[in-house]
Amino acid sequence: MRICRFNDNRIGLVEGDQVFDVTAIAAELPALAWPLTPGDQLIALLPQLKDKMLALKTQAARLPLSGVKLLSPVANPSKIIAAPLNYHAHVAESAADKQIHNGVHLPGYDGFDSPVAKFGVFLKSPSSIVGAGEGVRIAYPGRRNDHEVELAVIIGKQCKDVSAKNAFDVVAGYAIGLDMTVRGPEDRSYRKSADTYSVLGPYLVTRDEIDNPDDLDFSITVNGEPRQSANTRDLITGVADLIEVASHAYTLYPGDIIMTGTPEGVGTIVPGDVMHARIAAIGEMDVAIRA
Amino acid sequence: MRICRFNDNRIGLVEGDQVFDVTAIAAELPALAWPLTPGDQLIALLPQLKDKMLALKTQAARLPLSGVKLLSPVANPSKIIAAPLNYHAHVAESAADKQIHNGVHLPGYDGFDSPVAKFGVFLKSPSSIVGAGEGVRIAYPGRRNDHEVELAVIIGKQCKDVSAKNAFDVVAGYAIGLDMTVRGPEDRSYRKSADTYSVLGPYLVTRDEIDNPDDLDFSITVNGEPRQSANTRDLITGVADLIEVASHAYTLYPGDIIMTGTPEGVGTIVPGDVMHARIAAIGEMDVAIRA
Repeated sequence: MRICRFNDNRIGLVEGDQVFDVTAIAAELPALAWPLTPGDQLIALLPQLKDKMLALKTQAARLPLSGVKLLSPVANPSKIIAAPLNYHAHVAESAADKQIHNGVHLPGYDGFDSPVAKFGVFLKSPSSIVGAGEGVRIAYPGRRNDHEVELAVIIGKQCKDVSAKNAFDVVAGYAIGLDMTVRGPEDRSYRKSADTYSVLGPYLVTRDEIDNPDDLDFSITVNGEPRQSANTRDLITGVADLIEVASHAYTLYPGDIIMTGTPEGVGTIVPGDVMHARIAAIGEMDVAIRA
Repeated sequence: MRICRFNDNRIGLVEGDQVFDVTAIAAELPALAWPLTPGDQLIALLPQLKDKMLALKTQAARLPLSGVKLLSPVANPSKIIAAPLNYHAHVAESAADKQIHNGVHLPGYDGFDSPVAKFGVFLKSPSSIVGAGEGVRIAYPGRRNDHEVELAVIIGKQCKDVSAKNAFDVVAGYAIGLDMTVRGPEDRSYRKSADTYSVLGPYLVTRDEIDNPDDLDFSITVNGEPRQSANTRDLITGVADLIEVASHAYTLYPGDIIMTGTPEGVGTIVPGDVMHARIAAIGEMDVAIRA
């Protein structure tokens, strides 16, 4: 199933180039009261709502996917987790480019099995989340602001201390993630957290539709120019191990997002640019950059 | 006003060593529905609810403060922001102690006005939040786990790009914050984000009760042994400027927490220890460490 959120918080099922409006499913979400259990309620209840959504689809209004404004398929992530330096060629480009490491974020990991073993994972602010149709607003004009395309994993249930071998049990689905970044000496959790600096889209593809998340071609172009192109099989720390590492530190909640890391080819974007990102078996999206 | 959350999500007003149970105020909080506006609903509505809470207090049950289990006064922070290296003597101890910097977190900031100007602020996971009565569970046994006591600022309203001169307008109140930390090479947002690694308490003191947050004595002892003792007047980047820096990067929401940074004297805690933290004009709290 491919679930999108669009226009004014409408809920859709995507098939091919069409969106079936199943917003009526929102009536099935119980009212919430303070204090809240963290997490996104729609993602938490997806397993119970799936059949009703499919039933609604049979009589749903259809819209062209290209004509809707896509919002983040997760409305309320309680946290956004991301993996640093998770492709060898990006480790190498980070070491070679002073504009990337700034003398602070040195990517060497001698004595450790992987960059993630040394640096752990990091956090992006949940307030940074947007969908493809909202676009990215440059928060640091005059500095180097980069695209980083990556596979995003969306957690489906509350969990802690998940072992890699059971990790896919806690996955709701996948999407394309753009980990937008300003280069500089600041902490990753600051440089990657400005409003609109986490793009999730075009929609959530449920776990059952992806045979192997560790073997997906993906790419990004800017104004048609190829920038990054890779396959998730080259992840240094794969999807299941990332879930183990993250869930060892913190309780994960439905709708939490893990951005799995970006390959080589990160590069600058400026207002007026349009990014086109694509992951095989998931989809593709245009994301505009504005001032 | 001093507002606590205690036992099974009860709401209290604290006066001296007594808690007045005003949980009935929760009935005034409107039901919520997906998708949620981020932030803590009780903190967002405090200005409107203040008079009703005071009216409830006149007939409220009283409990001894020492007999309740204190939870975080903010139930649902959308984010926890923290300032690195914000007292000169802590910058110096971080530079001198390889167990603190690990060859990665080098605190030098030549060419910048302050550590915050170089490193920005960083994020802690909202899932790490606990109250004084819940205690801290060591997530990394066998490694060096430290206390860091600091003044915590609680944001009262949604805001973005707040200038320092207007910063106090967006403050709901203050509390003691413990930024629990495992030492190592990992990113700050990982090492400080394990479940229970952000303690907020003993309660929220509303802004009107604190004449000057940049002039408060504070301290922490462990099993009665003095560890950290300082005054917020020694903050390198003060409260108002931290709000400006944070709100430049991200939209802040009611209940967002800014931990303002820790002074010198950070040190190790192990299961069985009891921390006693105190900030003048706010209060004091015992926090137990467990395995």
